[in-house]
Amino acid sequence: MDIERTLAELTLPEKAALVSGKNFWYTAAIDRLGLPALMLTDGPSGLRKQNPGADAGDITDSVTAITYPSAALTASSWDQSLMQRLGERLGQEARAEQVSLLLGPGVNLKRSPLGGRNFEYLSEDPLVAGKLASAYVRGVQSQHVGVAVKHFAANNRENQRFTASSDMSQRTLRELYLRTFEIIVKEARPASIMTSYNKVNGVLNSENHHLLRDILRDEWGFHGAVMSDWGAVANHARALRASLDLEMPGKGQASIDEIIRAIETGELDEGTLNKAVRHILHLIDDWAPQTTAGDYDHQAHHAFAREIADDSIVLLRNHDEELPLNTKTSGKVVVIGELAEKPRYQGAGSSHVNPSHLVTPLEALKNTGLDATYYPGYRLDQSETDDHLVQEALSAAKEADHVIIFAGYPASDESEGFDKNSLMLPENQTDLIGSLGRVNAHTTVVLQNGSAVEMPWIHSVTAVVETYLAGEAVGEATWDVLTGQVNPSGHLTETFPIRLTDTPMAPTFGQDPQHEYYTEGIFMGYRYYDTHEMHVLYPFGYGLSYTSFELTDLAVDQDEHGATVTFNVTNTGDIAGKAVPQLYVANHSSHVPMPTKELRAFTKVAVEPGETKTVTLKLSRKDFSWWCDGKHRWQADSGDYEIMVGQSSRDIRLQTKLTMDFKNSPAPITMETYLTTIVRDHKLLDQFKATVLKPLGANNPLGFSDQQDDQPELTQNLMFLNMPLRALVATGVPETFVADFISLANQRN
Amino acid sequence: MDIERTLAELTLPEKAALVSGKNFWYTAAIDRLGLPALMLTDGPSGLRKQNPGADAGDITDSVTAITYPSAALTASSWDQSLMQRLGERLGQEARAEQVSLLLGPGVNLKRSPLGGRNFEYLSEDPLVAGKLASAYVRGVQSQHVGVAVKHFAANNRENQRFTASSDMSQRTLRELYLRTFEIIVKEARPASIMTSYNKVNGVLNSENHHLLRDILRDEWGFHGAVMSDWGAVANHARALRASLDLEMPGKGQASIDEIIRAIETGELDEGTLNKAVRHILHLIDDWAPQTTAGDYDHQAHHAFAREIADDSIVLLRNHDEELPLNTKTSGKVVVIGELAEKPRYQGAGSSHVNPSHLVTPLEALKNTGLDATYYPGYRLDQSETDDHLVQEALSAAKEADHVIIFAGYPASDESEGFDKNSLMLPENQTDLIGSLGRVNAHTTVVLQNGSAVEMPWIHSVTAVVETYLAGEAVGEATWDVLTGQVNPSGHLTETFPIRLTDTPMAPTFGQDPQHEYYTEGIFMGYRYYDTHEMHVLYPFGYGLSYTSFELTDLAVDQDEHGATVTFNVTNTGDIAGKAVPQLYVANHSSHVPMPTKELRAFTKVAVEPGETKTVTLKLSRKDFSWWCDGKHRWQADSGDYEIMVGQSSRDIRLQTKLTMDFKNSPAPITMETYLTTIVRDHKLLDQFKATVLKPLGANNPLGFSDQQDDQPELTQNLMFLNMPLRALVATGVPETFVADFISLANQRN
Repeated sequence: MDIERTLAELTLPEKAALVSGKNFWYTAAIDRLGLPALMLTDGPSGLRKQNPGADAGDITDSVTAITYPSAALTASSWDQSLMQRLGERLGQEARAEQVSLLLGPGVNLKRSPLGGRNFEYLSEDPLVAGKLASAYVRGVQSQHVGVAVKHFAANNRENQRFTASSDMSQRTLRELYLRTFEIIVKEARPASIMTSYNKVNGVLNSENHHLLRDILRDEWGFHGAVMSDWGAVANHARALRASLDLEMPGKGQASIDEIIRAIETGELDEGTLNKAVRHILHLIDDWAPQTTAGDYDHQAHHAFAREIADDSIVLLRNHDEELPLNTKTSGKVVVIGELAEKPRYQGAGSSHVNPSHLVTPLEALKNTGLDATYYPGYRLDQSETDDHLVQEALSAAKEADHVIIFAGYPASDESEGFDKNSLMLPENQTDLIGSLGRVNAHTTVVLQNGSAVEMPWIHSVTAVVETYLAGEAVGEATWDVLTGQVNPSGHLTETFPIRLTDTPMAPTFGQDPQHEYYTEGIFMGYRYYDTHEMHVLYPFGYGLSYTSFELTDLAVDQDEHGATVTFNVTNTGDIAGKAVPQLYVANHSSHVPMPTKELRAFTKVAVEPGETKTVTLKLSRKDFSWWCDGKHRWQADSGDYEIMVGQSSRDIRLQTKLTMDFKNSPAPITMETYLTTIVRDHKLLDQFKATVLKPLGANNPLGFSDQQDDQPELTQNLMFLNMPLRALVATGVPETFVADFISLANQRN
Repeated sequence: MDIERTLAELTLPEKAALVSGKNFWYTAAIDRLGLPALMLTDGPSGLRKQNPGADAGDITDSVTAITYPSAALTASSWDQSLMQRLGERLGQEARAEQVSLLLGPGVNLKRSPLGGRNFEYLSEDPLVAGKLASAYVRGVQSQHVGVAVKHFAANNRENQRFTASSDMSQRTLRELYLRTFEIIVKEARPASIMTSYNKVNGVLNSENHHLLRDILRDEWGFHGAVMSDWGAVANHARALRASLDLEMPGKGQASIDEIIRAIETGELDEGTLNKAVRHILHLIDDWAPQTTAGDYDHQAHHAFAREIADDSIVLLRNHDEELPLNTKTSGKVVVIGELAEKPRYQGAGSSHVNPSHLVTPLEALKNTGLDATYYPGYRLDQSETDDHLVQEALSAAKEADHVIIFAGYPASDESEGFDKNSLMLPENQTDLIGSLGRVNAHTTVVLQNGSAVEMPWIHSVTAVVETYLAGEAVGEATWDVLTGQVNPSGHLTETFPIRLTDTPMAPTFGQDPQHEYYTEGIFMGYRYYDTHEMHVLYPFGYGLSYTSFELTDLAVDQDEHGATVTFNVTNTGDIAGKAVPQLYVANHSSHVPMPTKELRAFTKVAVEPGETKTVTLKLSRKDFSWWCDGKHRWQADSGDYEIMVGQSSRDIRLQTKLTMDFKNSPAPITMETYLTTIVRDHKLLDQFKATVLKPLGANNPLGFSDQQDDQPELTQNLMFLNMPLRALVATGVPETFVADFISLANQRN
């Protein structure tokens, strides 16, 4: 398409039509010019393509589609190639359904485990979220289907999400909440970005010029289209002026009238409108369906839903090698929990999919060869204990060789649109797990949940398997891991705190309807727990395997642009497995608050028993940088750093110090410079004595003197060192003496 | 003095002279008009009147004076009348020395236990600091000596104190860091306020118009003078424009020239200068010495130094009633620790006093009647263990019936001018305490320290007595408590955390040379630990007694202005004692983050064995209020509160709920109002259905309908409730329907 020619041919009403959706799920078509409507469809973990004739807002009335695991689980794979393959399959399915833009992935950080939408998100860490989402985006877009990366930005709570302001420092915004998007925009060039409902520092994101223009387009070089979340636009003209391109959903003629009126009144100028229209035209040009509707291999895609769950399920506890169950020798197995029969395998809201082929754990159990019987144990539709069900379950458990209890949050607890207020499982499940642990010393808990769970019963059970929301192959994948068909290799991408009150934002999260105060700043997730040396239930990056890995031979090759880190991973067990080595960097150089360590690289590596593989990970200058609010840029400081490689943020196996030289120029000495800087960093005590103390002689108002020739004392005098030059003048040292010293010192630097 | 007439007679150079100090410790005199110089003297806990001829900056060269305990200890008395008597005595001493203004009290909050000057400050809680300082100020000023309340404001760290900015929300500033000053200004009318070195939110406090004019003078009605801390003024003209009155110290003619030049260049106008001069003239008029130098009863004042220490020392641990030592039956006592011989009894910096009559613990021991021997055990001038001293001490301890080990921070650790970087005692002391606890099951630790200490050895010792920095009667007061001559009644005014990393600001405190980020907001001290349900070593408000108290019969009488709380305190033990009942309020009404409880009133009450006293404490509207940044005012919300009375923040003995009605008018409904507010608070679901849902009929874009007559479902639909009216319009509900509803709803309200 010749964008400029098409733009010139469009009438004002046509342009107005293009910057709003035609309705809930389509952009406007301009038939006169052969511009087709684009179909937009929810679906980070499976297509939620609305059925024809369904209520626009009825999110359950959609075509059937492969239901992949929620992002909480797929991210636990820590596997970029697997995420790319997921994207490819979703892209194939979208293309088959004539969908132009898939509304995903959801990449907001899991700031509080109470966040209602955490199950749709990838991690508490921006690097994990950014890298995995980039792979997913590349996968989808390789199939000629675009994505809408959402929700831009800092949409970390659901309650009052339309109006609440996420209030935080620029550094927190840059290093955490924008960082994920920055990685994706730069590495995967997504077709579009979806703004979130909330405000950032008081400005509604759909009208946030600083986010949408200054940062997203001008700094990061984003060339795609920016659309609103559904209903996020409060004032369309203001949004267009702030660089939003597409308001969704459309309000039909009302939207068109609104824009025309804004142009007439001068609230909007046509040049601004044209910018948005250009982006929409590019979107149509790039992503309009090129083929007629087709099909895809449902069976193969279901198998992939199982494979990605297999590689993502996290083994949290495995006392005395309770797992895997040996199907030949495990004896009598009792399976308990209504969730085995009616599993939770996806979240509610816009990511809801009508599954193509759901296999429940109870159904999949039949194919395991286990000698197993099932008892519901509790009712999902209530939180009170059902004594009859409990007695039945306990009686069976007492006689069993192994107990598997399926537990999790009920569907009504976790959804888009509202936040949770507890991390506890329903009382009937909590009590039952405790009781089972007491009657049978071989009790495994299988969790189905969208985000972190408190586990007051942890020490009474033998094993815990975290399956999150595992998609339509939930049953197959769960037994794959329980029986050892698959060696688990998932690792947590979020910290599981011991108690909700351990989370840094416990007293503030969702408390103020108008503001969410990000008071913890950059100390979120493991950056908080590790720095405060807090006990956690399971740390970030944690996951067990049926084999074991050894990390050895750390070597670092550095230059002024960064470093290359290599080490070996050896499988020291008897079966093949996949390790997730994580590279953390600790900054001991910068004079700003710093976490004890931050994840800067990771990979996933399959290793055969006895095999050793060498892993190479790169660190760029940015991996040593922090966002300096004052200078409004990333800053890498020369000095000491520490490289740590481990299997979780609390399981560091290798570490080494290194000193980086980024060729920073030293800060000039001013009236505000402290004597400690002058004496310790610039080593100019002698010059200071000669220029300031000597001329003062006995008239030194502060009693600091060079007469007594006790230089050690002066350099040890913390009160002296803690004065800036300005304070000397303010207490009576002639300004000329100090000015002379400053001039001399800066010549030397 | 006729202020206006005197002002009219002053020449510009004379005015310029008056707004600067003449030198370090005097204001300028204008002999021509009979305006005397005022002498200013350091001395929150004793006069530090510089000796004639001493170096200006040599803070140890001063006259001898009674050395009272540091504020860290006196505050632990929780006794306002005792603090007033302390002020009276300091006032008498100042008057006797011709001092016009005593530079104290220091009232900044102890935000981090690393704060280098915490020993000079009163509490982590603004009410405790405010009430105790007010009593002190009333005491000093009753003797015709003025005070300079310092350091205004938010000067909670020493490192880079001349330039660092204390960055925090207005709410945090108002509810915590300014609140203490507000109480003092309103309740005690101090002669002057001293600004601190630091910035608040980027503006240097000596130039902070918002603090000095808008808040201090215009809001709080302060009528005294505002002086700078010594060397805090970066630009005198800017400071005067911001409502600073007096720059200290003076730079002589240089200061005068500076002002004249500023007037000439127009940088300063004479009206602004006159305002400052008026305040200085009032200061001279009110506080110039009216008598010639005199004397005071040194012995009686020393006795008071002992009395206030007696009533402030905190008994932290007393396992198996180890204490008090019975001087008749206690057998062989071994006293260990060089601090018994060379006690730390005051902090360093501007509060340093040359003691009139120091009595060390070792000297005072002779008068106790105990059969005691002394061993140094460690060397104060090093942190390494001295094996010989340790062996000697352990051998003696093994044979003793009781061991008393004196421990504490060395003087070089705690001073004005720099912060600490650890809460650990020196290694030689830590190790020795552990060893002693292992060889003798009757080991008491006596602590001499300016602020909180980590106690990794706590479970190996029998008793712990916190004496902080106890002043010149340190020896007498310590044995008073150890031997039961005095029943301890001190309670902590700060939390002792288990580890430094447990403090909320552990990763950020002092990390950035230019900014101190108050990221914990209002969740500081017990407000943090209690809300996060964290374990602490000793909680805020905690202190043991040799007797026990029962709290009973809580009753609350409330009206729309506040509440009156009464309860009984009974001494259930065998000896007389003093209880410190503390009244906390929990706010369950306000839609902003709130600590689980906040101290709103306290008292100290002496109770004879078996006696019951009734305590009445008042709560004002302000005690139910929080600072609303948006409305820029204190706000008291109607709704549920909880009243708790206890003996520490973790030892609540009585509690009751109450519902306050402050006659707030309901917020009007706007496009930003959430359906949850409309349905649950305003109870207008029926009206909403009639005005919006019914006219929509089948055209409801969101699928929410009144057709299905399932009202319970709509009121339970959290996603629906979590939408503002604006979001309905944005997704296609005609704006007129919603506007009609808003208009109808607001008529009803």
